[in-house]
Amino acid sequence: MKTLTDKAEVLIEALPYMRRFVDKTIVIKYGGAAMKDEALRHSFAVDVVLLKHIGVRPVIVHGGGPQIGRTLEQVGKASEFVDGLRVTDDETMGVVEMVLGGKVNREIVELIQRGGGQALGLTGNDGRMIQVERKRPGDRDIGRVGTVVAVNPAPIAAVAESGFVPVIAPIGVSEEGLTHNVNADEAAGAIAVALGAEKLVLLTDVEGVLDGEGKLVADLDLATARAAIESGVIQGGMIPKVECCAAVVEAGVPRAHIVDGRARHALLLEIFTDGGVGTLLTR
Amino acid sequence: MKTLTDKAEVLIEALPYMRRFVDKTIVIKYGGAAMKDEALRHSFAVDVVLLKHIGVRPVIVHGGGPQIGRTLEQVGKASEFVDGLRVTDDETMGVVEMVLGGKVNREIVELIQRGGGQALGLTGNDGRMIQVERKRPGDRDIGRVGTVVAVNPAPIAAVAESGFVPVIAPIGVSEEGLTHNVNADEAAGAIAVALGAEKLVLLTDVEGVLDGEGKLVADLDLATARAAIESGVIQGGMIPKVECCAAVVEAGVPRAHIVDGRARHALLLEIFTDGGVGTLLTR
Amino acid sequence: MKTLTDKAEVLIEALPYMRRFVDKTIVIKYGGAAMKDEALRHSFAVDVVLLKHIGVRPVIVHGGGPQIGRTLEQVGKASEFVDGLRVTDDETMGVVEMVLGGKVNREIVELIQRGGGQALGLTGNDGRMIQVERKRPGDRDIGRVGTVVAVNPAPIAAVAESGFVPVIAPIGVSEEGLTHNVNADEAAGAIAVALGAEKLVLLTDVEGVLDGEGKLVADLDLATARAAIESGVIQGGMIPKVECCAAVVEAGVPRAHIVDGRARHALLLEIFTDGGVGTLLTR
Amino acid sequence: MKTLTDKAEVLIEALPYMRRFVDKTIVIKYGGAAMKDEALRHSFAVDVVLLKHIGVRPVIVHGGGPQIGRTLEQVGKASEFVDGLRVTDDETMGVVEMVLGGKVNREIVELIQRGGGQALGLTGNDGRMIQVERKRPGDRDIGRVGTVVAVNPAPIAAVAESGFVPVIAPIGVSEEGLTHNVNADEAAGAIAVALGAEKLVLLTDVEGVLDGEGKLVADLDLATARAAIESGVIQGGMIPKVECCAAVVEAGVPRAHIVDGRARHALLLEIFTDGGVGTLLTR
Amino acid sequence: MKTLTDKAEVLIEALPYMRRFVDKTIVIKYGGAAMKDEALRHSFAVDVVLLKHIGVRPVIVHGGGPQIGRTLEQVGKASEFVDGLRVTDDETMGVVEMVLGGKVNREIVELIQRGGGQALGLTGNDGRMIQVERKRPGDRDIGRVGTVVAVNPAPIAAVAESGFVPVIAPIGVSEEGLTHNVNADEAAGAIAVALGAEKLVLLTDVEGVLDGEGKLVADLDLATARAAIESGVIQGGMIPKVECCAAVVEAGVPRAHIVDGRARHALLLEIFTDGGVGTLLTR
Amino acid sequence: MKTLTDKAEVLIEALPYMRRFVDKTIVIKYGGAAMKDEALRHSFAVDVVLLKHIGVRPVIVHGGGPQIGRTLEQVGKASEFVDGLRVTDDETMGVVEMVLGGKVNREIVELIQRGGGQALGLTGNDGRMIQVERKRPGDRDIGRVGTVVAVNPAPIAAVAESGFVPVIAPIGVSEEGLTHNVNADEAAGAIAVALGAEKLVLLTDVEGVLDGEGKLVADLDLATARAAIESGVIQGGMIPKVECCAAVVEAGVPRAHIVDGRARHALLLEIFTDGGVGTLLTR
Repeated sequence: MKTLTDKAEVLIEALPYMRRFVDKTIVIKYGGAAMKDEALRHSFAVDVVLLKHIGVRPVIVHGGGPQIGRTLEQVGKASEFVDGLRVTDDETMGVVEMVLGGKVNREIVELIQRGGGQALGLTGNDGRMIQVERKRPGDRDIGRVGTVVAVNPAPIAAVAESGFVPVIAPIGVSEEGLTHNVNADEAAGAIAVALGAEKLVLLTDVEGVLDGEGKLVADLDLATARAAIESGVIQGGMIPKVECCAAVVEAGVPRAHIVDGRARHALLLEIFTDGGVGTLLTR
Repeated sequence: MKTLTDKAEVLIEALPYMRRFVDKTIVIKYGGAAMKDEALRHSFAVDVVLLKHIGVRPVIVHGGGPQIGRTLEQVGKASEFVDGLRVTDDETMGVVEMVLGGKVNREIVELIQRGGGQALGLTGNDGRMIQVERKRPGDRDIGRVGTVVAVNPAPIAAVAESGFVPVIAPIGVSEEGLTHNVNADEAAGAIAVALGAEKLVLLTDVEGVLDGEGKLVADLDLATARAAIESGVIQGGMIPKVECCAAVVEAGVPRAHIVDGRARHALLLEIFTDGGVGTLLTR
Repeated sequence: MKTLTDKAEVLIEALPYMRRFVDKTIVIKYGGAAMKDEALRHSFAVDVVLLKHIGVRPVIVHGGGPQIGRTLEQVGKASEFVDGLRVTDDETMGVVEMVLGGKVNREIVELIQRGGGQALGLTGNDGRMIQVERKRPGDRDIGRVGTVVAVNPAPIAAVAESGFVPVIAPIGVSEEGLTHNVNADEAAGAIAVALGAEKLVLLTDVEGVLDGEGKLVADLDLATARAAIESGVIQGGMIPKVECCAAVVEAGVPRAHIVDGRARHALLLEIFTDGGVGTLLTR
Repeated sequence: MKTLTDKAEVLIEALPYMRRFVDKTIVIKYGGAAMKDEALRHSFAVDVVLLKHIGVRPVIVHGGGPQIGRTLEQVGKASEFVDGLRVTDDETMGVVEMVLGGKVNREIVELIQRGGGQALGLTGNDGRMIQVERKRPGDRDIGRVGTVVAVNPAPIAAVAESGFVPVIAPIGVSEEGLTHNVNADEAAGAIAVALGAEKLVLLTDVEGVLDGEGKLVADLDLATARAAIESGVIQGGMIPKVECCAAVVEAGVPRAHIVDGRARHALLLEIFTDGGVGTLLTR
Repeated sequence: MKTLTDKAEVLIEALPYMRRFVDKTIVIKYGGAAMKDEALRHSFAVDVVLLKHIGVRPVIVHGGGPQIGRTLEQVGKASEFVDGLRVTDDETMGVVEMVLGGKVNREIVELIQRGGGQALGLTGNDGRMIQVERKRPGDRDIGRVGTVVAVNPAPIAAVAESGFVPVIAPIGVSEEGLTHNVNADEAAGAIAVALGAEKLVLLTDVEGVLDGEGKLVADLDLATARAAIESGVIQGGMIPKVECCAAVVEAGVPRAHIVDGRARHALLLEIFTDGGVGTLLTR
Repeated sequence: MKTLTDKAEVLIEALPYMRRFVDKTIVIKYGGAAMKDEALRHSFAVDVVLLKHIGVRPVIVHGGGPQIGRTLEQVGKASEFVDGLRVTDDETMGVVEMVLGGKVNREIVELIQRGGGQALGLTGNDGRMIQVERKRPGDRDIGRVGTVVAVNPAPIAAVAESGFVPVIAPIGVSEEGLTHNVNADEAAGAIAVALGAEKLVLLTDVEGVLDGEGKLVADLDLATARAAIESGVIQGGMIPKVECCAAVVEAGVPRAHIVDGRARHALLLEIFTDGGVGTLLTR
């Protein structure tokens, strides 16, 4: 059990962080376990509402791969992947938009509202917010899959300044106005840069970046991160996450975090304690 | 061909209306032919963008019945109706949300953006904007079909004040946070009242209200409208439209119009000419 | 007769111009037929009031040569001209001031007020607004005739920002505080520059600039205009008008128009239609 | 010669008055000797500029009877009077407007500007500021002679708030838009009331109100003033002046003064010394 | 040691309190052990600075009895007490002012500044902030001892709004401008009322209010508090403290606390934990 | 006795100065006779209140040497001086703080308040306003005697902007937070520079700077002042005063005055008359 002295220490530790993040924007990529497990979903919502409550401006960007897959299966549409990217014809894209924008996004809006907050769902075609070019891996046309080339921050700002938590589905729009599928981590990173966010948080299903001996690395700077990718210490699915964080930090966002979304209140602890949880990447 | 004098006359006729509606909100129920025919879709987008351009604040509320029906068919789900209301079980509601919020709404946002405007899509669960109670026709439970009991105007105001045209899908939320299907005319009316709009416009597929001899009635006051329903002069599908307008006018919106959406630029002509088109209902 | 489609087209043509000129200043030199003919006087007042009504800021500068001549005749004072400039001794200047400031200016203020606007008359000695040096054609002293050397925009801004249409008599003040007669076109041009106006409009009694074959030239750039004066295509009384417009455009006002004041609603058509009327001079 | 102690005493006496009148409006009827004698004209201008300089808002209303008479004589127009009011046909009114608005008003504007201030001339038809009904002494129509029924303070406020000293010619406008001759004291009083002025000052050619023994009465309240008129202590031309002041004070202006304009700097001394000069009327 | 879950719980408990008190004023009577013990002095300064840091507005009112006594002894002035009040002749008052305003107050200002805050010392004669009447216990004149009759909040507001922590010495001023000694608890209470504070905190050297069995009473309402005084459950030095809190709550301050100043970070725990420490008195 | 003309002249002389100093800061070093003589104390208070009243922002910095000496004597503490600086051990500094901050400062606050103003006392440790380094004359440690190295203007601005007259005791704080004795002229000068004051006024017990023949020098520029010190024309106690003024003027304060505080209303006359009193030093 906690003594009063313990409580005082936690508070003294947290108070300066509260002040630092007041009126600051934190972009959070929400996905993985934190989006599936009911208890973690609830703990996520509580964290977001508390952040908002004390004056921080959280912006949520979500993924939705599993739900899209399930729905495509239901309508009997086979999924094909090239370099880990879903080949997306027009019919598939129609399903992607309906699932991400009409279902997943809506559920997160409601999740936060049940936690006591006010949320507002957006997709990247609102105000042509997420602008993309078509991706062509190995020069192959895999259809409506895009890479972000610009972000119009106005729709997010409009929503956030009016007191709502923006919840964003990672759908982009090409110059001709065609919607495209976008990687959620990439979208979150580009949005953090465009908003001049104080911090990007990627909620993942791992502990963070591990060193050669499998121990968590708490802090990482750009040069070390890149060397670790080069030398093979960082591997597999962690590589694009670290590269996403590195690009964001390089573009001026002071801090990017890879946080273990499987722990309750990971978001809160990451922001308000000295140690934090997961791996922090800075310049 | 138009002479200069003709042009001057049109301008002199229109200028006072421009001034009257600057910074005023006009809620437009968009549906029917104007939503299906490509040329009419384009003319609608041009009208909305011009309205926005000269300082009017258009708010679009759309329907989507046909698309919902088609998608339910595709997934092999039978449609059942009670008193003209679609019986809506949870699975059906999932489809409704995906179609209205993830497809129809998105297409209208993009339509306006192609016309040169900036739009932002909303559904009634954003900020729990459209609050409903379950409808029970003849005390029968037909599932997630709601009637509007309150509207939170904050999300729409946030969007409109930031320069975007709000495009709203008629989905409501019950007190427990469950989404419900809502009639689009009803939603548009309740939104017009909540926003203190200057005008409600229902775009329909008829000329307007007709009198006993089949001639268009240009102006109608509350008492006359009700008498005409009573006496059977107004019949069929026109009855709920007139009742919707009457309720809105009674609640304080100065003008409600039933406009023929099959005519090009119906919206513009209705707002900026003395004669207008269709039927105007006032106190 | 105009069809609805015609009306829609006129409106669609006009709407962007309305937006462009909102909160912008347009300086209008008012004189000639538009000031004498009763119907044209009324049409001018309607145009000014409508402009004001939709948010444009019209500023009127008027002449008054004929009335001055008539009054001088009445008091038995002979008029003498050098190079088209009235020789103006102190007694003559007293009459000029009384006629321009105490009569013509007042009548235009009232004309606009009868049209439904609010106007406020100014002369160039209010706040020492129009500052002049004495003109000496051929080094001859022709008395109190001045050329504008500076304009203090503060009095006009004060009046316009409070919602009044400023109506300005072209009287200048020398450094010693002596009033001088000033050419109204020249005064209007200098005022347009000092106010950073969007447009200068000279209402005249001709169709506009004509080309060698007597056809109206709709658009003219600086170089062409000067070449046409040089080559003798532009002649006579049109030369100073074009030179005035050229100087104004060169000093940064985007557009200067020579408009046929003999046509009803010339002002409105010039501003709100694509073709405009008369000749538009731009850089 | 003044000692330092004397100076200190004058300053200590004046300082509270300065504070009291900062940002307050003082309406001054300017006429008589102060308008004719060159030294007094200069002293008046210095006083007005200094008042303005320390933050008081002077508003000048001027007369012009003698100049009108002289000009009518020049044009061979006979002057007829009924009950002291000039019979004013349309031709006479034309002369009145030209002289008051085009000459006298202009000279005062320039007088103040030579003193170092910024002034702006107005007449009662600017913004239909001074609204009148026709006077009918003994039910006789004496032409365009009006009595003030309302004052629109907007034009004066626009001018004063922009830093100019408003200089107002006493010309009124009837409901049909016809200009009328108005008594300057009456106009000044009505303007003081409409502006919510702190003080009305009538500059006259007498010492002030005298008591039965010919001694100056420094302070007068409403009741005493009326009794003195009743009892015949106040006589002749002083009666309308006192009545004007009484009406103004009754309508809510805290102080009205009748001041001897024949003394240099009468205005300054009246405002900034305990004793003041002339007669002060209060509730 | 604390686990992450413990930390998360403390934060979730504290966050709503942070929000509640942002931009709210908390008046803290500082005295006793918390002012003498070096470690407690430091912990008090840390608490005040953190409160300020997260947007709360702390206002400190201090006592100083012991130091006054010591200094009077040094200058060989005997102390006499009537009903617990120090008999205060002019010489004694001179010493009181010098000790409270020139020494104790200054030390607390510096204490907070060493903790990282910005403080500004005030005494009750600044802006005649604490206005008193002379106390006459048993109708006996005991000299310059006052009871607060009014508080001018302007000096405190000026200081607090500019980002400083106001530190106030309990010296009052009578109507004639004579300084008087005032009880610090009383002064703190009157200041809390005048500032519309959210809370009054009295730091004391006891655990809080105890019940008949010697157990701490965490919550107390007005009626219960008064009954407990009546019945003798609350006794001795606790009576005036409870009465002070009761008066303050009655006058509209929502919460008054009696807190054990002997515990480290008592202030922080009291404000940011559900249990709080000490006794909370509410309506 | 003063005639009306005399009064008018004094006013016309004073009015421009009033305007010049509105909203400007004047720092006044208050000390010497003006602080001891009852009539002069009263005249000083009247002057300060009047200045404040008309919109000037007076800031008072006071000395207190004689009172400190007296109190040290009372407590039997011997005074030792090195180069005119009081050797200040910790005990002495305790007395200095109590006398300056707890007594002299308080009396001046009350003096101004009796004169009708609102004052607020500050010492240099409020907000660590006056930052000092220890003085070491001839490298000797004379204890807590400091020289100003920086001034934080925030506390003074907070107080002045809220309508209070700041009254400042010349106590400085070293980097470690230790209070030090500071020369009042030096403190006043540094404060004038930090506030961007319009003027520094040193009230002294002499007529001003005298020339070689003992006549008052009304105006002095920097070069002349320094030459006069060099050549020995300025001598003794006047040297540091002139050097203080010279440093202040060099640092950007437009005017510094040495004024005879023995004359009644010296402050007022100095500020509001052309001649002024005493010596004015400018660039």
